[in-house]
Amino acid sequence: MSQSEAISKKVLAMVAEVFDQHIPFHNLLGMRIQRYDLEGVEVTVEMKPELIGNIHQQILHGGVTATVLDVVGGLTAFAALVAGRDDWQEEELRARLQTLGTIDMRVDYLRPGRGQKFTGTGQVIRSGNKVSVCRMELHNESGQHIAFGTGTYLTG
Amino acid sequence: MSQSEAISKKVLAMVAEVFDQHIPFHNLLGMRIQRYDLEGVEVTVEMKPELIGNIHQQILHGGVTATVLDVVGGLTAFAALVAGRDDWQEEELRARLQTLGTIDMRVDYLRPGRGQKFTGTGQVIRSGNKVSVCRMELHNESGQHIAFGTGTYLTG
Amino acid sequence: MSQSEAISKKVLAMVAEVFDQHIPFHNLLGMRIQRYDLEGVEVTVEMKPELIGNIHQQILHGGVTATVLDVVGGLTAFAALVAGRDDWQEEELRARLQTLGTIDMRVDYLRPGRGQKFTGTGQVIRSGNKVSVCRMELHNESGQHIAFGTGTYLTG
Amino acid sequence: MSQSEAISKKVLAMVAEVFDQHIPFHNLLGMRIQRYDLEGVEVTVEMKPELIGNIHQQILHGGVTATVLDVVGGLTAFAALVAGRDDWQEEELRARLQTLGTIDMRVDYLRPGRGQKFTGTGQVIRSGNKVSVCRMELHNESGQHIAFGTGTYLTG
Repeated sequence: MSQSEAISKKVLAMVAEVFDQHIPFHNLLGMRIQRYDLEGVEVTVEMKPELIGNIHQQILHGGVTATVLDVVGGLTAFAALVAGRDDWQEEELRARLQTLGTIDMRVDYLRPGRGQKFTGTGQVIRSGNKVSVCRMELHNESGQHIAFGTGTYLTG
Repeated sequence: MSQSEAISKKVLAMVAEVFDQHIPFHNLLGMRIQRYDLEGVEVTVEMKPELIGNIHQQILHGGVTATVLDVVGGLTAFAALVAGRDDWQEEELRARLQTLGTIDMRVDYLRPGRGQKFTGTGQVIRSGNKVSVCRMELHNESGQHIAFGTGTYLTG
Repeated sequence: MSQSEAISKKVLAMVAEVFDQHIPFHNLLGMRIQRYDLEGVEVTVEMKPELIGNIHQQILHGGVTATVLDVVGGLTAFAALVAGRDDWQEEELRARLQTLGTIDMRVDYLRPGRGQKFTGTGQVIRSGNKVSVCRMELHNESGQHIAFGTGTYLTG
Repeated sequence: MSQSEAISKKVLAMVAEVFDQHIPFHNLLGMRIQRYDLEGVEVTVEMKPELIGNIHQQILHGGVTATVLDVVGGLTAFAALVAGRDDWQEEELRARLQTLGTIDMRVDYLRPGRGQKFTGTGQVIRSGNKVSVCRMELHNESGQHIAFGTGTYLTG
């Protein structure tokens, strides 16, 4: 493993830990970063009564869906930025992380959010030094497709 | 006040109470329906540590912004549906409320979510018996514009 | 082939012919419906000087991209509507075609529109009796991905 | 008038002329840049048979609407970039113009495009050195609101 690979790996592991444990709103939802490397990200949230948006139907609130998709998109955009160069310094990447932000996001709600565990994944469709665009998906534990997202992220 | 006006008023008041007090995820965020009538809706959320998305900057998580905008859009679309006819029966409106849902939503994040109290408002830009489209806004207590939303809602 | 299948086939063929030959703006662009059946649609446009949006780079105007994606989305949504029932009457389908319309569309421009021939394809991600949502793609003749689209269509 | 003001004015006038007369697809549609300065832009297109998208209803094709909105958004984003600094060199601005591009755009179709003359206008909702976001509108000659747009543009 080259030095740059080591830096990339270290920074993504650090980001995963921050997003998994140290962001208050992620803790409030019970969101977990299950996997995060240069190949992608897997974010989960388990159903619990506080996340319900419709008491009759007992389904996930659309705001939780939007939150998971946005987090997936941001992490996906950042991984693509890291993967795009092989001469990163750790400080540079930390600085980029500070300025990482969502510019806009579209959510397409495909079906009611029924299920016990929801998993978000994503892929980059446009990768750039300044802006990246990602497509994200949310599925439940049965593999049902709950929602799609498309997000534009400022990466530099 | 005609009978239909009385029904409209009663149903909107009922919806406001449900959204203000009986939706678990709204309670988790501390979201409040401050006003809801045929002229519009005002939804607020007060900053608290659990809603933070960036510990360094102490700003509102983008998922909270998306949640408030989506709730504002849904309520705005429903009010427009109610306002569009003057011969509603209460049961019809209750049935319509059950099927009300977000089809898609775009959020434009304009600036970091700094502030103590955030207020969401909205307006209908396309009103229909089956589908309505709304534009929504989120401001902080200083009047700074935090985010715009555009949402398409199934109303029938 | 059942009577309903025969009706579906006939109506889609009629729609393909109208979109291919009798819509003035499609003729202006040189847009062609290469294929249209229950499995999907393929729409093409060949580069010609009049479609250029940037004289230095000689690339397709983004408005042409948006146009092709929107047409693909509308045709895809209509095919899904037809596929969703097996008891259509021809008159019903003709009436549905009259009311078919785009509610909203997002276009993600991935790279400059370089090429000689551009092909649009799509798939339904949410199919309904009233509203359908589609994702669309535009590629050039080398298989380069030029743009993504996401559109919400009124189908009834 | 300062030297920088003179440069800004000169560059916007040059851009207006290029977009009005030297972009082939704009000429094909008959699109005109009626006004373009630091305060905003006004783009028009007159109805003609070739722009029709529905022969029964004789309405503007949605692709023309998308095209006008996208052009308005790009010009609005560029004007905001120019307005954001008072020490531009002409060469810098010409370089920025070369890289100006649409990242993503949402179009909300509000009503059928009936009319004889359509006018697009816009405003910046997020202005930046790298990315700007605009909201755009299309009205017909009676003041009827035909469509809204929201676009994200790469400005640097």
